Amino acid sequence: MYRSHTCGELRIENANQQVTLAGWVQTVRKFGAITFIDLRDRYGITQLLFGEELNNELDQSPLGREFVLQVKGMVNERSNKNANIATGDIEIKVESFKVLNKSAVPPFTIQDDTDGGDDLRMKYRYLDLRRNAVKKNLELRYAVNRSARNYLHENNFMDIETPFLIKSTPEGARDFVVPSRMNAGQFYALPQSPQTFKQLLMVSGYDRYYQIVKCFRDEDLRADRQPEFTQIDCEMCFVEQEDILNMFEGLIKQIFKDVKNIDYKETVERMSWEEAMWQYGNDKPDIRFGMKICNLKFPSHTFSSKENISSLINGADFKVFDEAETVVAIAVPGCSEYSRKQTDELTEWVKRPQIGMKGLVFIKVNTDGTFKSSVDKFYSEEKLKAIASATNASAGDLILILAGAEERTRKAISELRLEMGKRLGLRKENEFKLLWVLDFPLFEYAEEDNRWVARHHPFTSPKPSDIQVMINNNPVIENAADYLKHPYANIKANAYDMVLNGNEIGGGSIRIYQRELQEKMFAALGMDAAEQHHKFGFLLGAFEYGAPPHGGIAFGFDRLCSILGGSESIRDFIAFPKNNSGRDVMLDAPSTIDEKQFEELQIKLNLK
Amino acid sequence: MYRSHTCGELRIENANQQVTLAGWVQTVRKFGAITFIDLRDRYGITQLLFGEELNNELDQSPLGREFVLQVKGMVNERSNKNANIATGDIEIKVESFKVLNKSAVPPFTIQDDTDGGDDLRMKYRYLDLRRNAVKKNLELRYAVNRSARNYLHENNFMDIETPFLIKSTPEGARDFVVPSRMNAGQFYALPQSPQTFKQLLMVSGYDRYYQIVKCFRDEDLRADRQPEFTQIDCEMCFVEQEDILNMFEGLIKQIFKDVKNIDYKETVERMSWEEAMWQYGNDKPDIRFGMKICNLKFPSHTFSSKENISSLINGADFKVFDEAETVVAIAVPGCSEYSRKQTDELTEWVKRPQIGMKGLVFIKVNTDGTFKSSVDKFYSEEKLKAIASATNASAGDLILILAGAEERTRKAISELRLEMGKRLGLRKENEFKLLWVLDFPLFEYAEEDNRWVARHHPFTSPKPSDIQVMINNNPVIENAADYLKHPYANIKANAYDMVLNGNEIGGGSIRIYQRELQEKMFAALGMDAAEQHHKFGFLLGAFEYGAPPHGGIAFGFDRLCSILGGSESIRDFIAFPKNNSGRDVMLDAPSTIDEKQFEELQIKLNLK
Repeated sequence: MYRSHTCGELRIENANQQVTLAGWVQTVRKFGAITFIDLRDRYGITQLLFGEELNNELDQSPLGREFVLQVKGMVNERSNKNANIATGDIEIKVESFKVLNKSAVPPFTIQDDTDGGDDLRMKYRYLDLRRNAVKKNLELRYAVNRSARNYLHENNFMDIETPFLIKSTPEGARDFVVPSRMNAGQFYALPQSPQTFKQLLMVSGYDRYYQIVKCFRDEDLRADRQPEFTQIDCEMCFVEQEDILNMFEGLIKQIFKDVKNIDYKETVERMSWEEAMWQYGNDKPDIRFGMKICNLKFPSHTFSSKENISSLINGADFKVFDEAETVVAIAVPGCSEYSRKQTDELTEWVKRPQIGMKGLVFIKVNTDGTFKSSVDKFYSEEKLKAIASATNASAGDLILILAGAEERTRKAISELRLEMGKRLGLRKENEFKLLWVLDFPLFEYAEEDNRWVARHHPFTSPKPSDIQVMINNNPVIENAADYLKHPYANIKANAYDMVLNGNEIGGGSIRIYQRELQEKMFAALGMDAAEQHHKFGFLLGAFEYGAPPHGGIAFGFDRLCSILGGSESIRDFIAFPKNNSGRDVMLDAPSTIDEKQFEELQIKLNLK
Repeated sequence: MYRSHTCGELRIENANQQVTLAGWVQTVRKFGAITFIDLRDRYGITQLLFGEELNNELDQSPLGREFVLQVKGMVNERSNKNANIATGDIEIKVESFKVLNKSAVPPFTIQDDTDGGDDLRMKYRYLDLRRNAVKKNLELRYAVNRSARNYLHENNFMDIETPFLIKSTPEGARDFVVPSRMNAGQFYALPQSPQTFKQLLMVSGYDRYYQIVKCFRDEDLRADRQPEFTQIDCEMCFVEQEDILNMFEGLIKQIFKDVKNIDYKETVERMSWEEAMWQYGNDKPDIRFGMKICNLKFPSHTFSSKENISSLINGADFKVFDEAETVVAIAVPGCSEYSRKQTDELTEWVKRPQIGMKGLVFIKVNTDGTFKSSVDKFYSEEKLKAIASATNASAGDLILILAGAEERTRKAISELRLEMGKRLGLRKENEFKLLWVLDFPLFEYAEEDNRWVARHHPFTSPKPSDIQVMINNNPVIENAADYLKHPYANIKANAYDMVLNGNEIGGGSIRIYQRELQEKMFAALGMDAAEQHHKFGFLLGAFEYGAPPHGGIAFGFDRLCSILGGSESIRDFIAFPKNNSGRDVMLDAPSTIDEKQFEELQIKLNLK
């Protein structure tokens, strides 16, 4: 061993001990004839004192930042203690030293506030990983990993590895494929998730399965997606939705406790997908703050059970509202005194292409009881008061109203709500609020093919009460225009998403385990019997031999870590991430391969 | 939840409780008006008693093997207890039942001694996994996984995930490659191991890394290889060989304790590669038994430090020995009374193509002090006695002697030793003997290219005393015939293999961390500067910025599990293995892919 102690270990109790340390030179400070060096390793920083007697030697082999150094010396109490670091009471009076390896001057500083840009740090990722900020993220990631494994182990889950070289069954996302040399002309696929395997393990009776496992999706990468990502993947036998919700609330609460020392004692809120859309405009609401949507107007086929209050705004000759499919509002607390400049800025904000609204209507609920709006021309003070009352606005609030087509407008108000929450400091970094979103629609309508697509995935079961609806009806949509009248349009899924602070951190479902129902599902997705057999024959076969009721969930491990670490970016929590073009710029991968490899695989390029 | 208890849980203390169980029908036995059913789940088997009053209902929905059943009833003490199962004191008097799913008649019996052949069981792997024998293997695998993680965690190792989509740098084994759609014409490779990444993590200062991780090699599959396999992969900073040996003996001993309840207290034996070859004829000797090789004759360039005793056999006009490069013997204990038939059978055994010897010479060391050999014509009793003495044979032993070319003959005597050990019951299933094999040669000679290849891998450091030999000499072999005289031929690696019962379960090395030395290594392997930069520029770059001394090891997780489980086949310890053609016959993968996939990837087939 090159050391007797780590750089984070020595305390005042070790004074007068002979020690050997090894690590990296963080800083070199010369004070006259003596030199101080901060020596760094994974565990901390220890101050080294090089006395005058070592000056000759230091001159012969000068030390620079990031040199790897081994020193022998005596632990001394420091006269000038540093309370900021754990070893701050001591320093090492160096007696001899050895440069284990030199370092060129790093292309950026190895500090929390590094001067390195994103591209440079990605290229030299091995140096970026030395920074404390990045190390803390990976340590948190390991702590989450450890906590999850311990909880699942205590609850009788077994880690069972599923294969990575599987069969390509593209449905939804694109597969990465792997040409097989031994089976020329054929390809493996990398798993988008171990979904069918974990279901087979339930058929095999393994009862409780888990895996922390890499998954792969060949999609065009949005800002915060990676082609390979990690899931905490779980499945259970003989359970209903309630059992899964309880088990996995428990998992996340345990992680809060172990990793953040947070006792999450509250009951985890639950909300139907419909309520989430109605109140928050999206299916993963951030419930750390209120500012719920007031639905002033909405198309009749959506939210059919909800009260229609469009009379509040209709008939005032305000064409924007009269002609809009949807009019939605939020009451932003305490912002009634926004200046013209501020409301103009908000108007510009909603008109950005990412939001795509044509304009913004506002009503100021003044603290003196009066109202001031951008639509005073059309609405009397009385009417404004009625609208304000519908939005639950208080004196001092600023009501923001968007109008337009249902889908886009609801999305826009949701974004605006989140933006205002952020601006007002309502999305507190150290507050964690969990939420289950339930009762999703089982299907979405795919206009281009006039068929159904599975909203979650094709293995999700409908609610028990909808199983017969699904089995007894033909999934084919005879009349595209009337697809909403098809009985499948209203089928609810036995599915659930776990949402943390406005992010979906996990999702799952109770699965189909009846062959007949699974075949109906595949048929709804436009697969004929031959295609079903080719792609999923093994699963349909397994359902013939005593498949038990089962269900599960998968958590996005990268995302979960980034939220717990208070970061927007999952990339900061992955040791070797890829950029937005799917490249590893450090390795320079992907790259060309040898002619011999093409020959052996019996493929060639066919570049457009 | 579909059950109140599992099928392995109920005891006599639960008598008179109302319970709900769910599981699979293992057996149905009718006795007159009553029916007994064994209900099975992951946790055990519970006997169900269906009384006469349920006969009508049973007639309406008859139960078969592997049906999924839910029953409600009362726990009763059994009159006829079964001491073989944990629940054997009780049975459930069924009050009501529900068939949760039917099962077709399985294609083979779900029992330890199943009637299903290998191919059938692979196709229906989800049914094979139900068998207790397979379940026990996967449970053992999980126990090893858990034990390893706990030990490594307690020793400050961090699980850090490394990427799966990396760069193809074929050196040794073939890479599986993955065409990149976003970077058309370029390919990722799947990692053969996380070797370079774990080294970069050491450069980044993570100090102690581990991962239980899938690796991929596209090789023609021998009987017990898989294209995807799992490693326990570890790396440490600031260590020397001794530190690694201690740390990882500790790991394996902990696994013995946790998984097999074996206190492995003995010191783990250590042996140089040269001694292993000298005494056992291979580099992973099974030291559960002796029967060491007696080297009667060997070529002068091998084992140059060993005493030459060829005068014992030379000059007796026995051409087979006189002309042989190598003559080696073992003394098989207690077999001097082998019949002619038995020695003939052994002769046939060594003449099989897998062994490839031309014949077998034997000397019987009779218990009455006489000798009888197949070469009595050439060797006097006195000479036979001298040979016997050299082999350390005792009265009653049978000495077996092989002669031929060095490499083949040594391999053959090693195989013969193992075979005789097996026949004599010396390779005991419940005995575990660990061994470190050390001091491997760093290089092997590649005749076809007249260059060196790395015996372990190109990142292994030479012994400290050999570093200057490597740096100061040109790796080019000027004279192919004299390659043994090149200074590189004698360089020893700072590498180590852990051997368990004659199987290599892990191997590793202290790594090169100096750029100059790494470049020299790459040059020795025939890589010019451009190729070095293209393939490993990131690693050479990392060595510029303060790379610490480091080393590590990787254990073959599948193999380790199979040995602990007492099986020859790793396949039995993998949930979803592939066959010898690399196929998953259950999935029917690999398979063809869609035209759209080819188009998007911009590749096409080029079948010969």
